[in-house]
Amino acid sequence: MSRTLHDVASGTLFGVALNYQGLLEQHLAAFEQAPYQKPPTKPVLFIKTPNTRNAHGGVVLQPAGERLQPGPALGVVIGQRASRVSLDNAMAHVAGYVVVNEFSLPEDSYYRPAVKAKCRDGFCALGPEVIARDQVTNPNQLDLKLFVNGQLRQENSTVHWVRDIAQLIAEISEFMTLHPGDVLITGTPEGRVDVQPGDRVEVEITGVGRLLNTIEAEVLA
Amino acid sequence: MSRTLHDVASGTLFGVALNYQGLLEQHLAAFEQAPYQKPPTKPVLFIKTPNTRNAHGGVVLQPAGERLQPGPALGVVIGQRASRVSLDNAMAHVAGYVVVNEFSLPEDSYYRPAVKAKCRDGFCALGPEVIARDQVTNPNQLDLKLFVNGQLRQENSTVHWVRDIAQLIAEISEFMTLHPGDVLITGTPEGRVDVQPGDRVEVEITGVGRLLNTIEAEVLA
Repeated sequence: MSRTLHDVASGTLFGVALNYQGLLEQHLAAFEQAPYQKPPTKPVLFIKTPNTRNAHGGVVLQPAGERLQPGPALGVVIGQRASRVSLDNAMAHVAGYVVVNEFSLPEDSYYRPAVKAKCRDGFCALGPEVIARDQVTNPNQLDLKLFVNGQLRQENSTVHWVRDIAQLIAEISEFMTLHPGDVLITGTPEGRVDVQPGDRVEVEITGVGRLLNTIEAEVLA
Repeated sequence: MSRTLHDVASGTLFGVALNYQGLLEQHLAAFEQAPYQKPPTKPVLFIKTPNTRNAHGGVVLQPAGERLQPGPALGVVIGQRASRVSLDNAMAHVAGYVVVNEFSLPEDSYYRPAVKAKCRDGFCALGPEVIARDQVTNPNQLDLKLFVNGQLRQENSTVHWVRDIAQLIAEISEFMTLHPGDVLITGTPEGRVDVQPGDRVEVEITGVGRLLNTIEAEVLA
């Protein structure tokens, strides 16, 4: 069974930064220095604003003079209000899963709120559909692949998450209420690649779907 | 004439960081050091997520074990789609103004995406109403006052903004589309104060209104 995106994934899009072990390890050295002094102890979140929403088959514009990078990720669609949810009870708050391509300009640091890099129009594609929770046996062990023009360019597995879905829901709902339709974008793995106008970009996640977007050059008036 | 909040301010809430000259000056020394090396050259934005929405008369909960600070600010409600808008044409995209109290936990740095400090439930009060653009003669010269239990605790003027409304709309719409109903929270001045459970907190902006909220202690189950 699948449900339409419009029905069940219409809420806030929360991105989780640094949620793949390989990516976090790449940044550990930097975190030892000022201003951090230590790695983050809680999930670091960012927001993909409503203007970033894009669909299966949608065009993503490469901003003039900027590099553009896709961000393959599993989206977790919240099914019921979650406030101070325990680890044991967390998964009951999930409605289903959706493939996400969380586009971004390259970020060389995690120091600044990243709205300008992450919130361009159309920079968050979701689709083709939401797959109900009970249709996905183990979301914490899914293969994630990025194809550019049919070539495999990035590959990882959700088994390498720093925090799994239950941990994310428990830790985030400690300080804010998640609502039905909100989407947790569970992180993009290390090894982001650049894409160019004309490219066909696909994210495939085992049992969840394959999301296609095409890149075009932004045309300035 | 006034319009209801529900009609015209239902979109994304964009916060602008460091938009008062006094506040920016306080941070200039830190910006000279790693990792910044220089002060920001573009508006630094953050998002107040939908769960933060609160109203005139609403209760704001002080999270257990945390300090809570109100953030008096003028909200600019967008009236028409704004993409790559020129300075001269920017103000035509404004529907009106609303008083905002942008609550936050204290932030000792601008290094991390601030979702956890800024996006608690109820942390963004707007109201009592949206005042139409033509009812406010000069939004770039308004007195802004914060009262706690009737005592004046913070005071500034929008004349001390780093960027005025037209500049913000022009610079932000360069990289993302603003939509009708979106709200630009034009910044909170330096001198944030702590509030406590039981406090009555009011933000007054000349000609725009006076927004009341009361603070209560969060009760953990």
